[in-house]
Amino acid sequence: MEAEGSFTFRQGVIGLQGTGSGFTRRGVIGAGAGIALSAAIPKVARAKPARTSASAKSADAIVVGAGISGLTAARKLSAAGKTVIVLESRDRVGGRMLNHDLGGGHVTELGAQFVGPTQDHILGLAKEMGVNTFKAYDEGQNVYYKSGQRSTFSDKLPTGAVPLDPLILPDLLKAVLQLDQMSQSVPVDAPWRAEKAEEWDSQTLWSWFKDNQINPQVQGVVSAAVEPIFGAEARDVSLLYTLFYIAASGNERNPGTFERNFSTAGGAQESRFVGGSQLIPLRIAQELGGAVHLSSPVRRIEQTGSGVKVISDGGTFSAGQVIVAVPPPVAGRLQYDPLLPSLRDQLTQRMGMGTLMKAEAVYDEPFWRKDGLTGQAVSDTGPAKITFDNSPPDGSIGVLMGFIGGREARTLGQLPLEEQKAKALQSFANYFGEQAKKPKDFILMNWSTEEWTRGCPVSVLGPGTLLDFGTAIREPVGRIHWAGTETATYWNGYMDGAVRAGERAAGEVLAEI
Amino acid sequence: MEAEGSFTFRQGVIGLQGTGSGFTRRGVIGAGAGIALSAAIPKVARAKPARTSASAKSADAIVVGAGISGLTAARKLSAAGKTVIVLESRDRVGGRMLNHDLGGGHVTELGAQFVGPTQDHILGLAKEMGVNTFKAYDEGQNVYYKSGQRSTFSDKLPTGAVPLDPLILPDLLKAVLQLDQMSQSVPVDAPWRAEKAEEWDSQTLWSWFKDNQINPQVQGVVSAAVEPIFGAEARDVSLLYTLFYIAASGNERNPGTFERNFSTAGGAQESRFVGGSQLIPLRIAQELGGAVHLSSPVRRIEQTGSGVKVISDGGTFSAGQVIVAVPPPVAGRLQYDPLLPSLRDQLTQRMGMGTLMKAEAVYDEPFWRKDGLTGQAVSDTGPAKITFDNSPPDGSIGVLMGFIGGREARTLGQLPLEEQKAKALQSFANYFGEQAKKPKDFILMNWSTEEWTRGCPVSVLGPGTLLDFGTAIREPVGRIHWAGTETATYWNGYMDGAVRAGERAAGEVLAEI
Repeated sequence: MEAEGSFTFRQGVIGLQGTGSGFTRRGVIGAGAGIALSAAIPKVARAKPARTSASAKSADAIVVGAGISGLTAARKLSAAGKTVIVLESRDRVGGRMLNHDLGGGHVTELGAQFVGPTQDHILGLAKEMGVNTFKAYDEGQNVYYKSGQRSTFSDKLPTGAVPLDPLILPDLLKAVLQLDQMSQSVPVDAPWRAEKAEEWDSQTLWSWFKDNQINPQVQGVVSAAVEPIFGAEARDVSLLYTLFYIAASGNERNPGTFERNFSTAGGAQESRFVGGSQLIPLRIAQELGGAVHLSSPVRRIEQTGSGVKVISDGGTFSAGQVIVAVPPPVAGRLQYDPLLPSLRDQLTQRMGMGTLMKAEAVYDEPFWRKDGLTGQAVSDTGPAKITFDNSPPDGSIGVLMGFIGGREARTLGQLPLEEQKAKALQSFANYFGEQAKKPKDFILMNWSTEEWTRGCPVSVLGPGTLLDFGTAIREPVGRIHWAGTETATYWNGYMDGAVRAGERAAGEVLAEI
Repeated sequence: MEAEGSFTFRQGVIGLQGTGSGFTRRGVIGAGAGIALSAAIPKVARAKPARTSASAKSADAIVVGAGISGLTAARKLSAAGKTVIVLESRDRVGGRMLNHDLGGGHVTELGAQFVGPTQDHILGLAKEMGVNTFKAYDEGQNVYYKSGQRSTFSDKLPTGAVPLDPLILPDLLKAVLQLDQMSQSVPVDAPWRAEKAEEWDSQTLWSWFKDNQINPQVQGVVSAAVEPIFGAEARDVSLLYTLFYIAASGNERNPGTFERNFSTAGGAQESRFVGGSQLIPLRIAQELGGAVHLSSPVRRIEQTGSGVKVISDGGTFSAGQVIVAVPPPVAGRLQYDPLLPSLRDQLTQRMGMGTLMKAEAVYDEPFWRKDGLTGQAVSDTGPAKITFDNSPPDGSIGVLMGFIGGREARTLGQLPLEEQKAKALQSFANYFGEQAKKPKDFILMNWSTEEWTRGCPVSVLGPGTLLDFGTAIREPVGRIHWAGTETATYWNGYMDGAVRAGERAAGEVLAEI
């Protein structure tokens, strides 16, 4: 029953009961460690950035958090000739973007990885940093697994990633169409101003499905989509928040659609980054040089009439303005003097992070391709209800990746680690055969156990939050500006939103200094 | 238009825009300061407690938080002969129980104040501490204010505090009855195990009202009840959480009922404490002496194989066990080493505090009594939708108290302070006449601006939280035990629940040491 090879569980917490299950815990991958920085930063025409020396204790601006949002802000400020200090809690940059070295020059990602059409900001940034994309493997048939029955279907039909199940297809397409239509009346910069905001923020997505008499069988496929998209269940999310998220899944020229969230070709899972997504923040950090301070968790932000003082475990720094670019529940844990307005504080009390794991199994080859399969599965049975072929561009080794989200992650996370692994591999075997149970390497990344993220992929908003607290999401508080993907108006929850939020926050700061 | 006299706004945060509105901000009332400790601690037969000297850096147990829950735990441990250290962030004890000196030997309460039948634990504790009760003033007619129309009704009829409005009475009574019946299938110690837990935790209370075709006019009165009870709106709360809260509004012998939450005679607002509710924690603290450290916010809790180390601004302390007795969003802000299990951490990410203010206006006399009024009002119009006569026992001065909760508090809290005051007094005038606009003193307490509470009266749970995260509410994590009213099985959210939780947590610790 037990698979061979080495296993890695990426978890911040193992629990007090100890583990004793013979797995390898790898250390956190630091900037530049374990990751092939295969190419030097390409020479792209741009203004020579203002450099901040590693010993500087003050700068024009301080950025809290070296995820892609904070680094984007720092880079923009630097390019405008401003000095900047970036304070990062971890001993690495990238936040929710994290490469994992598979050996042999191959990497996979344990966090954000996919990009697609309309995500122009992350794509533009990647291009500037010399990071190329390649199409996610999508040749052949997808697997559909329902109530223990396995079948296959093509996602190249107009129905896209929706399985060709006559019992659910009509209702599901109808529901997606209705949600898309409703979302068009939700302003992405102020969802609480939608005409029906109060009604839509008074109920859950689950209630909407029930009230619209959607066939209950659809719920299985809905959970397969909602669990990875939000790290949550349909009952956890407000209908208004869902509609905002859909509206935000596009850009200024292309209205958002729900389908983009769960589609490969033409959707948010269309492409991946050569060398792994973390290459982008790693290269920005290299460009920023000594301005980036690792292992420097910020504990306190003090505002005075003349500036801001930021107290971290790595020292005290001062600046004219500060950008806080960490997840809302992490931002809410900082001490602020003076206290933040209560609306902002109570907002972060209500922006709990989703629950999401990624399970990745490494094989000598992507064996499912020979069976004419894409490696993609949609299942009503957990723990991994959605899978992808996460093999490197050349397909020289095989990697299956499964999302385990929402209730599946909450229950799985309480089992002994070896059981978590066995159950994840059982999902892979259900879709791609018994061979899937014998990986040569296995990695389970549980983002809820990460102290500096506390969940993934995004903050999940229940009913009533956007309506009464939404205005505080990105409203600056004196010299404090808010970044991070949760503050984005387009592609909120995605890398693209994080980049957009960083750009917007940098613009706010530039207007002040 | 402007009322005369002095005004006090009890707010931790005024906002960065400054105030400039000519009001008096009083300092925080410290233990013993400004409060008449009118009687020495009565001699009650009990074991001589183990005293901990003020200089002790270690003890058998440490309690984080000197609210009534933490102090109850400390007192119980002390009575069992254990040494204990209590670490409190504020420069006073009592947490959400806070007296306010009105001068002339009179006090009113800015936080928890009422007690009633089945709340045996707080009543028993008060008796032990020599604090007496008196009946809340309830003579005469209640005011009902709907869409600008004022009428009066008696709450001594079988319909109790429900206004005699033929348009809403039948539906409201039906709804309360149904909710009471449903609540009886919810186990107070494990609401997630109710047979219909998944269905009930998938929707909001608002959705339930809608689906049961309750007359929309009922919503006005529902908001009047839900705003003070939860500091939230019907859309903010999970139906399962509401049913749990109802089930918990009783004791082991008397099943909970919704009515008890909003009734005066026979309900949770039946009685008050002579000298103010804070007298109870003040006397416990006096009994514990040097064991209570004020102005010592805890920042970090480290567990080792042999004990626990608690790092506060007032020093580092060690013990065998620790009880954390602060609101969940405050507990979630501490640093833990090792990190807490992710289910516990993500639970506190989802237990945002309600939004609640108390407005209190002081007059030379309780003038409404002469008009045959109880001082109680139920209104569909904010900001204060529920009021009480909060005058001292002898009625020698008059105090009107209004609850401002949920959306009313969230919007009111963003206005200039003078406008907040004017709007609150307008509510009082709507119910009791223009005379209400001329108080000799006015106090507005906004609990959302209190750093060490961050909202009131209780954590508010949206859909999906109890179901997936509920098991972590009071499950000890190694040497860490959880108290506070949010962990109570009966009278969760009330003083009685806080006392019960403190007793339970102390029992857990005594079983370990």
